[in-house]
Amino acid sequence: MPSVPLHSSATPIVSAVLAFDVGGTDTKAGLVLSAAPGEVPEIVDIQRFRTALDAQRPGPVLVDFLDGLLRRYATEHPQLRIAAVGVTVPGLVDEQRGIGIYAANLGWRDYPFRAELESRMQLPVSFGHDVGAAGDAEVALGAGQGAENAMILVVGTGIAAALYIDGRRLRAGGYAGEVGHAMAPAPDGGLQIMEATGSAGAIGRRYLLAHPDFSGGAREVLTLAKAGDTVAQRIWAEAIAALAFSIAQAVAMIGISKVVIGGGLAEAGDELFEPLAKQIDQLLSFQPRPVLVKAMLGQNAGLIGSALKAQELLSAASSEPSTGALP
Amino acid sequence: MPSVPLHSSATPIVSAVLAFDVGGTDTKAGLVLSAAPGEVPEIVDIQRFRTALDAQRPGPVLVDFLDGLLRRYATEHPQLRIAAVGVTVPGLVDEQRGIGIYAANLGWRDYPFRAELESRMQLPVSFGHDVGAAGDAEVALGAGQGAENAMILVVGTGIAAALYIDGRRLRAGGYAGEVGHAMAPAPDGGLQIMEATGSAGAIGRRYLLAHPDFSGGAREVLTLAKAGDTVAQRIWAEAIAALAFSIAQAVAMIGISKVVIGGGLAEAGDELFEPLAKQIDQLLSFQPRPVLVKAMLGQNAGLIGSALKAQELLSAASSEPSTGALP
Repeated sequence: MPSVPLHSSATPIVSAVLAFDVGGTDTKAGLVLSAAPGEVPEIVDIQRFRTALDAQRPGPVLVDFLDGLLRRYATEHPQLRIAAVGVTVPGLVDEQRGIGIYAANLGWRDYPFRAELESRMQLPVSFGHDVGAAGDAEVALGAGQGAENAMILVVGTGIAAALYIDGRRLRAGGYAGEVGHAMAPAPDGGLQIMEATGSAGAIGRRYLLAHPDFSGGAREVLTLAKAGDTVAQRIWAEAIAALAFSIAQAVAMIGISKVVIGGGLAEAGDELFEPLAKQIDQLLSFQPRPVLVKAMLGQNAGLIGSALKAQELLSAASSEPSTGALP
Repeated sequence: MPSVPLHSSATPIVSAVLAFDVGGTDTKAGLVLSAAPGEVPEIVDIQRFRTALDAQRPGPVLVDFLDGLLRRYATEHPQLRIAAVGVTVPGLVDEQRGIGIYAANLGWRDYPFRAELESRMQLPVSFGHDVGAAGDAEVALGAGQGAENAMILVVGTGIAAALYIDGRRLRAGGYAGEVGHAMAPAPDGGLQIMEATGSAGAIGRRYLLAHPDFSGGAREVLTLAKAGDTVAQRIWAEAIAALAFSIAQAVAMIGISKVVIGGGLAEAGDELFEPLAKQIDQLLSFQPRPVLVKAMLGQNAGLIGSALKAQELLSAASSEPSTGALP
């Protein structure tokens, strides 16, 4: 009987997906391990990096940047085999064609990210919209599970949504879900884009206009409102009115029945959800009132959604009769 | 060699679908012949009947009524073999389950029309929403052909839409498309449901409020507006503002890129389409402006859509490996 070493000299290899959530300022990265169906996957070594920006060559520079991070993660985690890469970006994204149509802060127009990333990385790459990916994660594993007609509404600096009707996410070539840029009644009586009043960013900015020495954000405005500051109370109420308006539009127009709220503003809890539900109710008639819940996966929803999409690429490839070996 | 009669005593049998478009006042019926793919089918013997109403038993009475019309059509058209029946109704409809959820003017709640009609008629029956069926017809054969992200907006007494995103009609269990009941800015500065200002019905009603001796409808209000009547001009402009608001919401929220306008108001032509396009433009920013076109199939779109759906039942049945013979 041959002797068997207690420890193999070869490190055990576990397969993982490297996920990126590219933002206008920072890019978050993490190695996402496989999980049982319905389980939230473990993410290893989440790090934030300053997003590489270049006004002249925004697309190629981002590809270089992400490829550099891939090499760094591969070197630093030799025990993990990176089998695929998931990338999400903000703005307008054509997920079917893998193209970044437009992103105000990042500067590209119609850049073929998926093809360029796959060519550079020599790995399968999924390419998607950040809020869309976060929505997919909430629907697959989080607060949106089982919902057929759901809105995943991310309320932060700006506002965007992932919309699911009849169990499918609406895409419209990247244009579906930009609810922050739909019109809503403005506090002064006119109309303006909803996120100009309803976003966490707007709440802080509008309070700053009234109090130029203010240095906080939406959280601090809420604290002031609870302490009796009437300007803060008004700005908070106007934000809720704007959000309620857009949610009620989505209910009346496309039949949304569940709203999952994520992003910074969701942390306000009852101070947000209770008045919001009341105002939505007043804007509806025969329609069933939507269930409002807080997102479950928190700030990592985008990374997880991005990884889920990359894992789908792998299982699609492995179920094909004959594919080339993945590197 | 046996002698062959020049004319067979048996009448040649052509297959047809009997289509019904049930409204709150009238029900339209017609025999729809098969057509080549992409061709608008011929409709034989279109008739209007007073819809049978019964506040106590609205569902069963409608089933009796439609079954009576089926027998009448079968008797009067012995040369046609009625192979299936298509039925559309207004209100909230669960097309997947074949259920009329709710119809204000007709009175039913959660009535299983498809099952009851099939049981009574002993024929395959399709059951759908009137505006949804009209939209399907416009997308298949009319002004919406080839559009992936389209709104078929029917502006008549009330307003409803069929919404198509990524090439599929949104259903949400019957709740998608009720844009007439979504909020829009009211002329007096508040909010009210869009059809209270934007529908042809509202245009006539609002002018009547200002001129109690008025006896026309939206068409006459438009004529007065063109002749310089300032009240008529204001009411017309307010209707267009309401329609523009809801269309711009659909563009910004779900990425609609084509709007097919049907119903009575579409007959206004340029007087409707030109100011509407201008106002929609002002409510959008980065979004591509939607193409606005008039519906092509006119008042028979609902009948044709209803028939298309019934024909699909037949082709699905005939492509199954083994089905019972259809009567």
